[in-house]
Amino acid sequence: MKRRQFIKRAATVAAATGAVTASSLPAPAISQGLMKWRMQTTWPKNFPGLGTGANKLAEFISRASGGKLTVEVFGGGEIVPPFETMDAVASGTIEMGHGAPYYWKGKIPATQFIASIPFGLNAQEQNAWIQFGGGQELADKVYKELGCKFFASGNTGVQAGGWFNKEINSLEDYKGLKMRIPGLGGEVVKAAGGNVVNLPGGEIPPALQSGAIDATEWVGPYNDLAFGLYKSAKFYYYPGWHEPATLLDNFVNLETWEALSDDLKAVVTAANAYANSYVLNEFVAKNNGALNTLVSEHGVILKKFPDDVLNALGTLAGTVIGDLASADSLSREVMDSIVTFRKQAIAYAKVSEQAFYNARGLPFKWAD
Amino acid sequence: MKRRQFIKRAATVAAATGAVTASSLPAPAISQGLMKWRMQTTWPKNFPGLGTGANKLAEFISRASGGKLTVEVFGGGEIVPPFETMDAVASGTIEMGHGAPYYWKGKIPATQFIASIPFGLNAQEQNAWIQFGGGQELADKVYKELGCKFFASGNTGVQAGGWFNKEINSLEDYKGLKMRIPGLGGEVVKAAGGNVVNLPGGEIPPALQSGAIDATEWVGPYNDLAFGLYKSAKFYYYPGWHEPATLLDNFVNLETWEALSDDLKAVVTAANAYANSYVLNEFVAKNNGALNTLVSEHGVILKKFPDDVLNALGTLAGTVIGDLASADSLSREVMDSIVTFRKQAIAYAKVSEQAFYNARGLPFKWAD
Repeated sequence: MKRRQFIKRAATVAAATGAVTASSLPAPAISQGLMKWRMQTTWPKNFPGLGTGANKLAEFISRASGGKLTVEVFGGGEIVPPFETMDAVASGTIEMGHGAPYYWKGKIPATQFIASIPFGLNAQEQNAWIQFGGGQELADKVYKELGCKFFASGNTGVQAGGWFNKEINSLEDYKGLKMRIPGLGGEVVKAAGGNVVNLPGGEIPPALQSGAIDATEWVGPYNDLAFGLYKSAKFYYYPGWHEPATLLDNFVNLETWEALSDDLKAVVTAANAYANSYVLNEFVAKNNGALNTLVSEHGVILKKFPDDVLNALGTLAGTVIGDLASADSLSREVMDSIVTFRKQAIAYAKVSEQAFYNARGLPFKWAD
Repeated sequence: MKRRQFIKRAATVAAATGAVTASSLPAPAISQGLMKWRMQTTWPKNFPGLGTGANKLAEFISRASGGKLTVEVFGGGEIVPPFETMDAVASGTIEMGHGAPYYWKGKIPATQFIASIPFGLNAQEQNAWIQFGGGQELADKVYKELGCKFFASGNTGVQAGGWFNKEINSLEDYKGLKMRIPGLGGEVVKAAGGNVVNLPGGEIPPALQSGAIDATEWVGPYNDLAFGLYKSAKFYYYPGWHEPATLLDNFVNLETWEALSDDLKAVVTAANAYANSYVLNEFVAKNNGALNTLVSEHGVILKKFPDDVLNALGTLAGTVIGDLASADSLSREVMDSIVTFRKQAIAYAKVSEQAFYNARGLPFKWAD
């Protein structure tokens, strides 16, 4: 406010003296003082983890820019239907959106490879791929075709394997399994003989309860507990091989982005870095407490997919994803980059993160 | 530049007309327009991963603030000796520093528990602890006693186990082992009967070569390759149980921080989030390539610490760290918080990250 008063006063002085004309005042300073953007999320407003991350993004842009750029958050459907958020941003109806890349696969199939790939990268590796593995450049290329600038803006981490009313003891058990599982994971389940259906969120619990579906995946304990899925299913499987990390996207109308001053570009970039880690941190910190509640208060039975099932699903995933990636050149380009990065990530994880997790899991008593 | 010209011109006009006196110009606008901070790092300038992260931090603060706050980076020793960086910031000689919390354990022992704990949290969990597990509040409390505001500003991820000229086949092999290993990891090796020494970086390779020491740890493949340690040791052990994640700190003179406007506080906070993930991303992306070079070009032999050795070290670590944490109330408070968070993190990792790494490591052929 002080700054705007200052500009206003200076302009008054200038007008009074004629020494500095209004037109000689730097235009960006004035227009930026008034810049307001609208961001619609694909999530309901304040949705735990996903929506709260978008709120943090808006808050940091507004605060760090000192009010030069204020971002107002709208939940999915408040301006346009959730899955029309991309159209609204591309057309300039709103300036910014927040969602997940695979929501836009109907427009550009390559987006689904940026979001999450069965048996692909985990969150830490996905972030490294974005920043040092060519991911940012590829995602920008993909989003440019959508009319937007891309930012990684949150990550769920490894998701849960899903809620099942039938046990999975062999790959055979997927034959005829009616499961709600979207995206690339769904394609793999389909290839395993599953009967894959898509249902809007609200219809999932009754469908699971009535036996219309045998299984569903959602996010992870933190969101699944809030959604009450434990009321309708017996078994909670892990790990979420189908979404080992799901990246959330923040997208800005490309012309609006390109016209932005360098300081505001840096503000939006850094605020996205903040949101990107904030969302993952929230999931990492809160999933375990929720898992405890599910198991100890609601009697949920935790089950690990057997290794031979995981191995068979891994082979299927390779074929299915490879074929889908070859359907268009942009998907192929993104996938090739991820395949290269993943090979190195697996080799390194074996002597670092994975080896450490396994060492820490040995039976010794620590300083507890 | 434009903004400064504008302010200067407005001031000239004001002086000429007398309509607005110089003193009636809002002071923050002028002082902020000119604010310049000096940040000294404990690392040499542009040191891979560590120093480059500090550069990014300074770059984003300067850019996102539109020049209102410019941070100039100085390498360790350019203003004061590296380990006097904290004193220089606390006394206000410089405004900002970048290092690792355990460098300040001589002043406040609790800092070492914030940095890294043998068999403790990995980077993803450490970040979640900072943001959602009470870590930020505790670190702020610790750094307040140092006269500073604390930010997590980079992470090495799981470090390498170290360079050895003697094989480790049982805990007995640590008896009399002359090893350069600082911090809490060093205390554990000491408890295992090791002869722990501390050497400045430059003295490590000749000491290893001459047999004056049998082993040393450094960082991970990316830094270790650059340092040439493979020339002086035969075996490269994993995992780095002693530093499963080492957090880097950015610290700001407390009075300077508290006097900062809210927009610049948000800029510094978001820029640190950017640097925090940037450093980890660089390590994750570059460690594997370096590991490949070490193994395939330099014939380094990779070895995993045997599980029974890791289990024994885990037990020792528990006792040693527990005792050290009980030496003062602030250490105890930090450690208790981490112990609680770690218990939950381990339980959740078993059904998420750890289970996923293991599933992805099964022998199936993916889309490679």
